[in-house]
Amino acid sequence: MFPLLPLLPLLLLPSPSSAADFCVADFSGPTSPLGFSCKKESAVTASEFVFSGLGAAGNTNNIIKAAVTPAFAGQFAAVNGLGISAARLDLAPGGVVPLHTHPAASELLVVTQGVISAGFISSANTPYTATLRKGDAMVFPQGLLHYQVNAGGITAVAIVSFSSPSPGLQITDFALFANNLSTPLIQKVTFLDAEQILKLKKVLGGSG
Amino acid sequence: MFPLLPLLPLLLLPSPSSAADFCVADFSGPTSPLGFSCKKESAVTASEFVFSGLGAAGNTNNIIKAAVTPAFAGQFAAVNGLGISAARLDLAPGGVVPLHTHPAASELLVVTQGVISAGFISSANTPYTATLRKGDAMVFPQGLLHYQVNAGGITAVAIVSFSSPSPGLQITDFALFANNLSTPLIQKVTFLDAEQILKLKKVLGGSG
Amino acid sequence: MFPLLPLLPLLLLPSPSSAADFCVADFSGPTSPLGFSCKKESAVTASEFVFSGLGAAGNTNNIIKAAVTPAFAGQFAAVNGLGISAARLDLAPGGVVPLHTHPAASELLVVTQGVISAGFISSANTPYTATLRKGDAMVFPQGLLHYQVNAGGITAVAIVSFSSPSPGLQITDFALFANNLSTPLIQKVTFLDAEQILKLKKVLGGSG
Amino acid sequence: MFPLLPLLPLLLLPSPSSAADFCVADFSGPTSPLGFSCKKESAVTASEFVFSGLGAAGNTNNIIKAAVTPAFAGQFAAVNGLGISAARLDLAPGGVVPLHTHPAASELLVVTQGVISAGFISSANTPYTATLRKGDAMVFPQGLLHYQVNAGGITAVAIVSFSSPSPGLQITDFALFANNLSTPLIQKVTFLDAEQILKLKKVLGGSG
Amino acid sequence: MFPLLPLLPLLLLPSPSSAADFCVADFSGPTSPLGFSCKKESAVTASEFVFSGLGAAGNTNNIIKAAVTPAFAGQFAAVNGLGISAARLDLAPGGVVPLHTHPAASELLVVTQGVISAGFISSANTPYTATLRKGDAMVFPQGLLHYQVNAGGITAVAIVSFSSPSPGLQITDFALFANNLSTPLIQKVTFLDAEQILKLKKVLGGSG
Amino acid sequence: MFPLLPLLPLLLLPSPSSAADFCVADFSGPTSPLGFSCKKESAVTASEFVFSGLGAAGNTNNIIKAAVTPAFAGQFAAVNGLGISAARLDLAPGGVVPLHTHPAASELLVVTQGVISAGFISSANTPYTATLRKGDAMVFPQGLLHYQVNAGGITAVAIVSFSSPSPGLQITDFALFANNLSTPLIQKVTFLDAEQILKLKKVLGGSG
Repeated sequence: MFPLLPLLPLLLLPSPSSAADFCVADFSGPTSPLGFSCKKESAVTASEFVFSGLGAAGNTNNIIKAAVTPAFAGQFAAVNGLGISAARLDLAPGGVVPLHTHPAASELLVVTQGVISAGFISSANTPYTATLRKGDAMVFPQGLLHYQVNAGGITAVAIVSFSSPSPGLQITDFALFANNLSTPLIQKVTFLDAEQILKLKKVLGGSG
Repeated sequence: MFPLLPLLPLLLLPSPSSAADFCVADFSGPTSPLGFSCKKESAVTASEFVFSGLGAAGNTNNIIKAAVTPAFAGQFAAVNGLGISAARLDLAPGGVVPLHTHPAASELLVVTQGVISAGFISSANTPYTATLRKGDAMVFPQGLLHYQVNAGGITAVAIVSFSSPSPGLQITDFALFANNLSTPLIQKVTFLDAEQILKLKKVLGGSG
Repeated sequence: MFPLLPLLPLLLLPSPSSAADFCVADFSGPTSPLGFSCKKESAVTASEFVFSGLGAAGNTNNIIKAAVTPAFAGQFAAVNGLGISAARLDLAPGGVVPLHTHPAASELLVVTQGVISAGFISSANTPYTATLRKGDAMVFPQGLLHYQVNAGGITAVAIVSFSSPSPGLQITDFALFANNLSTPLIQKVTFLDAEQILKLKKVLGGSG
Repeated sequence: MFPLLPLLPLLLLPSPSSAADFCVADFSGPTSPLGFSCKKESAVTASEFVFSGLGAAGNTNNIIKAAVTPAFAGQFAAVNGLGISAARLDLAPGGVVPLHTHPAASELLVVTQGVISAGFISSANTPYTATLRKGDAMVFPQGLLHYQVNAGGITAVAIVSFSSPSPGLQITDFALFANNLSTPLIQKVTFLDAEQILKLKKVLGGSG
Repeated sequence: MFPLLPLLPLLLLPSPSSAADFCVADFSGPTSPLGFSCKKESAVTASEFVFSGLGAAGNTNNIIKAAVTPAFAGQFAAVNGLGISAARLDLAPGGVVPLHTHPAASELLVVTQGVISAGFISSANTPYTATLRKGDAMVFPQGLLHYQVNAGGITAVAIVSFSSPSPGLQITDFALFANNLSTPLIQKVTFLDAEQILKLKKVLGGSG
Repeated sequence: MFPLLPLLPLLLLPSPSSAADFCVADFSGPTSPLGFSCKKESAVTASEFVFSGLGAAGNTNNIIKAAVTPAFAGQFAAVNGLGISAARLDLAPGGVVPLHTHPAASELLVVTQGVISAGFISSANTPYTATLRKGDAMVFPQGLLHYQVNAGGITAVAIVSFSSPSPGLQITDFALFANNLSTPLIQKVTFLDAEQILKLKKVLGGSG
């Protein structure tokens, strides 16, 4: 009844495509300040929009009894350019995600199991802390120091999302004690005692 | 030992504060293109960064056997200005979130219970579909039509996050059939038959 | 009189150039989340900033009696990175641009000939409709469903501009009926009857 | 058949609304760096999304034989926050839009009548010029000096759009000669002769 | 000779003004996620674009022998909305700006007197350090931990600029030890010993 | 005491890296609308975050007795993608930076030696001028015409920063008189007399 072909040109805009819909990361291409290069749309399959890594518990058999499983652009190529990413957080009893920041994103955490004590500290040095139970959400504004601690008797699990495909993760202790920054310099810029610094460098693999 | 007071001015920058850390929504103030006005920082308490509404199952006793519980800026004032928000999705057996878009955000869904069949359609009219189990994540690029359907025998639950504090939600059926757009106009712009339109208008409360 | 050469270094900043002025698309290079790669400035000519395709009427000899002639970044390389693009809309008598969205841009339409009935529907399902005559402009906010219909006896023409070089275009009918999404799934996510779906799939070339 | 009411809560998200869809300017409220305050959505009518001022020819009975009729956020409240605006340009025979910039937007011009000679100059001082006929489009990158001149025997008309609701408009001659900047200062920063400056100050209403 | 009045309407666009040029902060109005409200343009004077506070040495008579004099939007109203701000840094001999971040901005430091040893640590825990002499510039990427230390025998001075009018400032030591976060919690999230924590809380005025 | 290895996976996120921390320009790669490609993080050294070119006086032995030494992304690769850049300004006695704009950035100037008279002109043609002494700062909003003139008896020096890594620089006189734009066209779009134009073309190297 209706002639079909004359309609198609309306939709099939002349290539090249414009990357307006999505930009699944092509890790073999150059990166730009806004993220990875885009795979050609014709090479993108539905499965690339799915990330299954958040289904399994992370390995919490470590000193912090915690695991963060990221689904950032580096692991979940489809979020590249879309302004969002996620991670799974596992906290065994006694577990802790030490004080850290995400330099490039705000974080929104939703507890799916257990109890988590969490908090962040503002630029005015005011702490904002809360005890979160299953289903509770908490938001941590961009770039501010924050932490999560298991506050219950069982493993706690949370789904966290970020306002960037590449939020970054800077754990204060690792920034200070897991590299070769000299102990006198660390003393100078943190007021910590040398013994304290050397003790933590030993734990975290730092030298100097 | 150390003189304390001379150090404080370094931190206590002269007010007024700059809203750089966060901007908890003040719903009584004016809105700007980027969101709600900010509450004064001195009036903000830790509990405002916590949202507990995602802990309880939504009421799925409706025709779509589904419920969306939003934690957008309108409900969760602390996400205002932070580039992120969340929601809980409950899908009873047989439940469906009908075809819809978020005009202002990409969505990242993580299944926390059950099985969900989901998909989106690109500007090139290509469908990208997947079956998601507990722990699976899927990303839906900004502004594109997508849906979620319970694909298992039990209620499915998902935590969804968005790349905007106010992602918007436009359900195609409601946009078409739940208002007074005239049936001839809808026919004209959708190619649907009048009987079909009138049938759905009746279901969804539309007139005309 | 004035010594010329010493002044030149002020202007001729050392290369490489910074792409600050413009970024004419190089379709042979990689794409980033923000658009196409830039041609080298030395290879860009004045004619690349001109697009002549909007001068000729589009072919409206099709089922919707309409034609959209895009000048997006994919067709008009010079708008890449500049936050704007355009298109020409031709609507023969009886013509219609079916319900659609632009996932990545707001649209501003200016009627240059004839009469157009247009409208968009908000997230709150409220329709905003108007009859537009020559010289009238209407703005369609980003990502919302909208349509344009010829409301006069002669061909209507409009110049439309977009707040993105790559606004995207998702026509609801084509997203639903011009691909292989299964009829039961479409029923499920749209409440449409199977007969209606099959009828439109036949018209628009879909299967399943 | 279907129970209607239980479905509605899915759509009718609890107020306050989130300003995600649009932000029609409320000129009585405060302005933010991103634009005007938003009118309450319940007070916004369809007619506010329509601007009729571009339909009538501007008055070109002036020294430049030209008129610019803006539909910026200040005149067309609905474009506030939407990243786009427009204007109509009328150029009588001999008419000119003198050298100017838009500090906050790129411009895309489409000729709808007559012939226009236009050009812009890059940071590298390279001119990019073209002769534009009906239907031709040209893009002027953000912040760069550009001009439009009638290059035909009849009045030329163009529809111009901008990548900002408030593009700004700085005409070089008016910036220099239509205020009280002192003649010696203008000499110093432009190398122009005092006689030339005084002559143009007289024409354009400047003093000093 | 030239008729003046007909030209003026081209320039004097109908008010209200659009805030496109600048948005000098009105501290008495509401704040938005992007910054302070704008003063009316007619009330803005030239002197508001000038900030004289960077001319005088800050008071370094404190435990860190350092002073930061900010010219952020809170102090220098004219930078509101303009994407930039500045500060003066004074480091007496032995002075230090302790480890800190700017949650919302990158920093660019230019030494104007003396010698400064500075560094930042990346998300990968890699330190990037340098010794900076008069005229040397160093950039510190957004949100990353960094420090500055006087590395010469005389007072060092630097002009620092930021990519935001409200960069924020979070000094790690003050975030940890200048408030009432409990010592056991700090132990838990930093691995520091209780004695160390209590010692620094005493110095910096914290409790708990 | 603490087992070290199990902790490391928390930090050492699987490569590829995400470019979240910084994006030092790789001038050999393609450019995107937002800037240069990023060097691989493993190839970036600390010295790349330091720029020493601002330490030496620029050569002011030219007709404007001024020199601008840029540290834009093209010269200082580390600022690429970080939203900031800088430059040094030297103004010998009698020196001037002629009227110019930065199409893509606001500018913040801090005087470090001497006296500078500076000003900008708004879209409303209002001049905002000031006399700046050592330590005074002035901000010039994006895209607006501005100038700097030595207003003292000694060489004046300033550190200027910009809200973009690639602010651009368009000097009005050079845009008009240092290329081959025809004299009649310049007359037409500036109202300047032909003699004046020809005189300045001769000085600045233009033809036509």
